[in-house]
Amino acid sequence: MTNLGFVGLGVMGSRIAQRLLEAGHHVTGWNRTRAKAEWLTERGLRWADSPRDVATVADVTFTMVTDTRALHDVTGGERGLLAGLGEGKVYIDMSTVSPAASRELAVRVREAGARMLDAPVSGSVAMLEEGRLSLMVGGDPDVFERVGPILRNVGPTVTHVGPNGHGALMKIATNLGLAVQMLAFSEAVLLAEKGGIARETAVHVLTHSAIASPMVRYRGPFVLRQPAEAWFDVGMMQKDLRLALEAALEYGVPLPTTAATNEFLTAARSMGLAHHDFAIVFDVLAALAGVDVRGDGGEL
Amino acid sequence: MTNLGFVGLGVMGSRIAQRLLEAGHHVTGWNRTRAKAEWLTERGLRWADSPRDVATVADVTFTMVTDTRALHDVTGGERGLLAGLGEGKVYIDMSTVSPAASRELAVRVREAGARMLDAPVSGSVAMLEEGRLSLMVGGDPDVFERVGPILRNVGPTVTHVGPNGHGALMKIATNLGLAVQMLAFSEAVLLAEKGGIARETAVHVLTHSAIASPMVRYRGPFVLRQPAEAWFDVGMMQKDLRLALEAALEYGVPLPTTAATNEFLTAARSMGLAHHDFAIVFDVLAALAGVDVRGDGGEL
Amino acid sequence: MTNLGFVGLGVMGSRIAQRLLEAGHHVTGWNRTRAKAEWLTERGLRWADSPRDVATVADVTFTMVTDTRALHDVTGGERGLLAGLGEGKVYIDMSTVSPAASRELAVRVREAGARMLDAPVSGSVAMLEEGRLSLMVGGDPDVFERVGPILRNVGPTVTHVGPNGHGALMKIATNLGLAVQMLAFSEAVLLAEKGGIARETAVHVLTHSAIASPMVRYRGPFVLRQPAEAWFDVGMMQKDLRLALEAALEYGVPLPTTAATNEFLTAARSMGLAHHDFAIVFDVLAALAGVDVRGDGGEL
Amino acid sequence: MTNLGFVGLGVMGSRIAQRLLEAGHHVTGWNRTRAKAEWLTERGLRWADSPRDVATVADVTFTMVTDTRALHDVTGGERGLLAGLGEGKVYIDMSTVSPAASRELAVRVREAGARMLDAPVSGSVAMLEEGRLSLMVGGDPDVFERVGPILRNVGPTVTHVGPNGHGALMKIATNLGLAVQMLAFSEAVLLAEKGGIARETAVHVLTHSAIASPMVRYRGPFVLRQPAEAWFDVGMMQKDLRLALEAALEYGVPLPTTAATNEFLTAARSMGLAHHDFAIVFDVLAALAGVDVRGDGGEL
Repeated sequence: MTNLGFVGLGVMGSRIAQRLLEAGHHVTGWNRTRAKAEWLTERGLRWADSPRDVATVADVTFTMVTDTRALHDVTGGERGLLAGLGEGKVYIDMSTVSPAASRELAVRVREAGARMLDAPVSGSVAMLEEGRLSLMVGGDPDVFERVGPILRNVGPTVTHVGPNGHGALMKIATNLGLAVQMLAFSEAVLLAEKGGIARETAVHVLTHSAIASPMVRYRGPFVLRQPAEAWFDVGMMQKDLRLALEAALEYGVPLPTTAATNEFLTAARSMGLAHHDFAIVFDVLAALAGVDVRGDGGEL
Repeated sequence: MTNLGFVGLGVMGSRIAQRLLEAGHHVTGWNRTRAKAEWLTERGLRWADSPRDVATVADVTFTMVTDTRALHDVTGGERGLLAGLGEGKVYIDMSTVSPAASRELAVRVREAGARMLDAPVSGSVAMLEEGRLSLMVGGDPDVFERVGPILRNVGPTVTHVGPNGHGALMKIATNLGLAVQMLAFSEAVLLAEKGGIARETAVHVLTHSAIASPMVRYRGPFVLRQPAEAWFDVGMMQKDLRLALEAALEYGVPLPTTAATNEFLTAARSMGLAHHDFAIVFDVLAALAGVDVRGDGGEL
Repeated sequence: MTNLGFVGLGVMGSRIAQRLLEAGHHVTGWNRTRAKAEWLTERGLRWADSPRDVATVADVTFTMVTDTRALHDVTGGERGLLAGLGEGKVYIDMSTVSPAASRELAVRVREAGARMLDAPVSGSVAMLEEGRLSLMVGGDPDVFERVGPILRNVGPTVTHVGPNGHGALMKIATNLGLAVQMLAFSEAVLLAEKGGIARETAVHVLTHSAIASPMVRYRGPFVLRQPAEAWFDVGMMQKDLRLALEAALEYGVPLPTTAATNEFLTAARSMGLAHHDFAIVFDVLAALAGVDVRGDGGEL
Repeated sequence: MTNLGFVGLGVMGSRIAQRLLEAGHHVTGWNRTRAKAEWLTERGLRWADSPRDVATVADVTFTMVTDTRALHDVTGGERGLLAGLGEGKVYIDMSTVSPAASRELAVRVREAGARMLDAPVSGSVAMLEEGRLSLMVGGDPDVFERVGPILRNVGPTVTHVGPNGHGALMKIATNLGLAVQMLAFSEAVLLAEKGGIARETAVHVLTHSAIASPMVRYRGPFVLRQPAEAWFDVGMMQKDLRLALEAALEYGVPLPTTAATNEFLTAARSMGLAHHDFAIVFDVLAALAGVDVRGDGGEL
């Protein structure tokens, strides 16, 4: 049982915090929009007035925010998390940001006397609830050793992949696979459909086939019915692909299928679909295939 | 318990026949190279002298061969399977051939008084042995009804996807996903690796992540060590992609990631890697990334 | 001055025949639809009743038809061109067909005692009229030598590229460049346009830039106003890309930009644009970019 | 005749300055490495000790440097060009930088009392010497009017494309076409070559065909013999593609062939070819096609 802090209690963050509470930890939290996280206080979460306050009372503080800018917002400044860190404390960032940004932040954390890990998660809320989330962790081995048991409360699969920034890198490498798999899945469904197989049947077969990754099983049915709320939308996915493509340019790795897929996400944005789950690339491809995707008169 | 026949006892075919024997069926078999299937006679397989003889003694005959040409060889001619068919018999082809070729064969089977299903399987030998194979079946519903229980002895997931030829179509739609997923996986591994993460670590994380399809879990580790024997080589995969691209041209479905991936399989062949498992696309991409793939002095 | 024959007097064929007449040759012609070529009889063309009759009276006979099937139609059978060939005659095919089909035909021509060249042309009618057409010729050098002066009446650029079939191969290699250049041009125009530059201005600059090939200069302005009549439509271009992709599969050459472009031509067909000039790929890309291409209320 | 200034006298810049001298203008110049531009002083160029000094004596000052960083170096600081500008002066940047960077600089120029145009050039030194260069100009129309005659001394094709930054945008839109055309050209050559046509022959035919843009005519022969000195290398081209891809992401334009080509430039860098002319993408594709590019024992 440890004193934990959690900054960024959105869709995923709040559920991870809940899991930590259920594992028996004390958790102090903060979110930009308090109302969204109110339900957690009924489950034992204590509220703090700023990221700084969270870091002050916690031994181990987590952040999970949408991008590099949001990360700067909650870590920097007078009320920021860095101001609350100190000797012996550990800070774990679960956001998906550029490896370089993560490394820079780790330096500042060390200057504040504390230690940092980058520990982004791979998987949806559904996978979290099934206890099948995986964490890829960057940072010093001794720090990883210390907080490993806590991370496994979230995981269960937790892998130390290298020094600071490498967790972030591993995450964006993973996410390029999500986007490409979704477009390839869409190609398969549309090929079957235009050949005469019912879309429902094609989705059923594919989500039970050798290509049925957790992502395909979860997101594949979205081509039948897009979800009311997007947990990972086109904009967020393209942010990650951009990080991947930029890292690839720096390290010198050609990414042929990633680059091709990225252009379809751009198309999705230009066609007004930015706030849909990124499974909407199916609709972009369907438009090119002359298929009327939503016979219901156009949810889009 | 039924009198079954099995023509084409290669790597996958022989193991499916074994499974049918274990389920309690009588199985009569034939293979071009008898020696390869000898081990099955010890498990109860009866040997026949031709595909025709198999079809003559069996109520339900299966074929599983490498391509359309091989299918013509075992079905046509004096000693061919069609000559042994007759009223009341069922013929089930598990090969991956073009939907059109499959439909044409179904017509000839009906002319012989029998009925045909196309029932290709998705999955590796590993998935078969774990009992996680899936079958996509094309043909008339009443025939599917009759032999469904036998197919589920192979499966267990068995889906009727439409009339004759639709099983074949669903299979090639599935297989394009295999190829694309493997190239995208390679992109992810190389991005992680050139960014400083050990290849073993990257493979471990990715095979436990949201992109870990059965294919990725099975074939992903091949980028660490290519298998001694290829069960599905570059040539076979490219045969399937070609079927997919031709069907897509006919039906009017753009396949952007499939088309990009197909070019890498062509490259694999031109680089002398045609007989490796198609996971070797990793090596093609690695060459472009300037990565020395096999430090062991070059198995390639 | 030679006795020439011309079979296939379509848009391009008829203008080449006109050019041969203007160069002082006797030309006997045949076209499936006679009315389309009537205007040439006023310029001296003599009409024949069949391809066979053309070949009977001519020393050198040309064909220019749309595809392999049409080529079989005019060469085979009782009224076909092959039946009119004989010792000392030369047959020159200017169609774009597969290298293999061309080689096979050359064998049959030789069996008839005559000799064949494949001599497809690169360039539009506009380039022909400006005298800037180029011919790529496959066949034996001595035959090429004999009819070279006649070919240069069409050209003027005439290059002997190798034995039978190599002219056809060189042509499909050239044509993949046309398609890719058109899509890349569309990317450039749309990037400029969505960044705030008028489309007319972008087209003007690009058609006077380092990328301004004869194709770009001729076809670039089509993105401002599609032509009333398509001289080279989506279907014809995709036929050529298919020949290129099949040859590339056989010879083992990856064609990354060709494969990507081919998918956009498939999209054009599925969006109902098959009979437009292939410059219509601009509209396909514009749809993906969320650009209303034809503010005029939709010529499409 | 005007008092002109020229900062950045590299391969292209020095030849443009020479052209301005030949047109009868006074030209004062500065280059980071004076020795490289020494030959121009013999042709009338006067030397200044800093970009600031150039701008002080000139009415119209040009810059032509390699990238945004170099542009900041010559414009900012105590010895920078901005410090020498003032009322009534015009500053024309011919470098290829991001549209945003160009717009920002224009604001600072105006604060200094002067006016700016962005006027990048499209074309090689060869095209300049043949008098076939084209300029795409961004900025206010009245300024364009004033210095138009001077720009036409360089051009001759000079097009005003819009306000500040639009010249830069038009340039990167043009350059994506260069890269794609070169890769497509390589595909065509290799398809012909592996089909049996001599590479020299294929290059000859293609450089005289409908795809023969000025770029193709100039750079196509490089696949036979790479030039000793690269005037536009892989690194420079990829810098421009990156600007194009980033602008496309911002404006929402999918760039399928550009994205595919960019991955081949990344490959070229990773294969150690960064400092070759970007025509070296031919070698990257040839490696994938299993073709030994340089039989001479490997210049690469």
